[in-house]
Amino acid sequence: MGKKIKKINAAILIIGNEILSGRTQDKNISFICNWLNESCGISVIEVRIIPDVEKIIVKNIQILSKKFNYVFTTGGIGPTHDDITAQSISKAFKVKYEFHREAYSILEKYYGKTKFNDGRKKMAKMPRGAKLIYNPSSAAPGFITKNVISLPGVPSILNSMIENCKKFLVKGLKIHSKTINLYTVESNISRQLGLIQKKNQKFVDIGSYPFFRLGKIGVAIVTRSSSIQKLNSVNKEILKLAKQKKIQLLKV
Amino acid sequence: MGKKIKKINAAILIIGNEILSGRTQDKNISFICNWLNESCGISVIEVRIIPDVEKIIVKNIQILSKKFNYVFTTGGIGPTHDDITAQSISKAFKVKYEFHREAYSILEKYYGKTKFNDGRKKMAKMPRGAKLIYNPSSAAPGFITKNVISLPGVPSILNSMIENCKKFLVKGLKIHSKTINLYTVESNISRQLGLIQKKNQKFVDIGSYPFFRLGKIGVAIVTRSSSIQKLNSVNKEILKLAKQKKIQLLKV
Repeated sequence: MGKKIKKINAAILIIGNEILSGRTQDKNISFICNWLNESCGISVIEVRIIPDVEKIIVKNIQILSKKFNYVFTTGGIGPTHDDITAQSISKAFKVKYEFHREAYSILEKYYGKTKFNDGRKKMAKMPRGAKLIYNPSSAAPGFITKNVISLPGVPSILNSMIENCKKFLVKGLKIHSKTINLYTVESNISRQLGLIQKKNQKFVDIGSYPFFRLGKIGVAIVTRSSSIQKLNSVNKEILKLAKQKKIQLLKV
Repeated sequence: MGKKIKKINAAILIIGNEILSGRTQDKNISFICNWLNESCGISVIEVRIIPDVEKIIVKNIQILSKKFNYVFTTGGIGPTHDDITAQSISKAFKVKYEFHREAYSILEKYYGKTKFNDGRKKMAKMPRGAKLIYNPSSAAPGFITKNVISLPGVPSILNSMIENCKKFLVKGLKIHSKTINLYTVESNISRQLGLIQKKNQKFVDIGSYPFFRLGKIGVAIVTRSSSIQKLNSVNKEILKLAKQKKIQLLKV
């Protein structure tokens, strides 16, 4: 192998009125972001949440699939009238929306011929050329159309399917991450932290996030990099800064 | 009054690498969506989550502020190097990024002159013309620039400030919502539900969401409309359908 792996990125498109109305708290974003990071070395660069409206889905698929290596959609692949992801992706890529032979046969076997009604048949309709992502929980498969991976919205089902996406993805460099928790306020270290970030702009990303723990205020300094060496050296600088400022560390 | 209130919409722009990396589970989206719906009759139509990168923030502010009545941003208004929301909004609207006199005075009073360091002073820098959104938790105010409302990323602080946004918002028609929980599977009712939706397309939005409860499978049928009459009539139709199909209701 030995060849340089470039950065691979992705976007997530959450399709669902129930998230936008505030009725449902999304749980898929952090799950997919974590899984892509940890298992595939793929960084999510943008997430969009949009309503179940065909022309909005079509436009977003067209924009995001051009801009990123992969697009993960969640939601809208069930049997009801508001499940319009597959037909919208077909329109976005100008391919036919039709029965996928293998999906049809999986679903027919799962439900049995007599219970395989129109709603259930709808779940076998996909953009022409789509490849299946098998579903160990509830049979109805997800699918990949060009660089767009379509998964269901129900978190437990999505979680059970995610490993089946792996074979379709080119892996990128793993992003390593470390967190140092300091019992201080952000403004006490912001200037020096900014200088450390500036010096290491190219290789390490430093984030600073306030936390509240048992009545005490603190800051989590999160560093992320594809190079462990660079990460360690920046973390050494942060620990040195904490020592200079006599800041107590929270060990978790 | 008596004049017709039109629909008011909004977008949310979550600015934060910590959400995209999967480290942090966002809690602000559902909170803001719910609050806007319940308290202001404003519907959120799009959410985007983007990294702490100036040119990406600038572009998204320009696009979303044109497309929607309001844009709510969360994150990036603290004292550290990765807090670049205010300077990015200034660039997006081509206005000066400068000290806001009242914000400066609030923060100076809160911290005391000797502890009012550069990091803390940064939190008083805003786009010229911004109006303050007071912060009862930790002093550093949010702000509104044209139609863009900028709030912090820490949920407890954001929650404490949200009521202070109200005076800047034109209220829309309240969206009413009802949920009927049926012990059935989606595909058992999908055809008839689709017909009910088609007949009421203009006024009522019907969503269908599977649930799992104590080992039993069900579907939550969520209806949303600005007209209570229309909502009730659609819900009657759904209950009639359930009765016809002998579907058990879950009363919660």
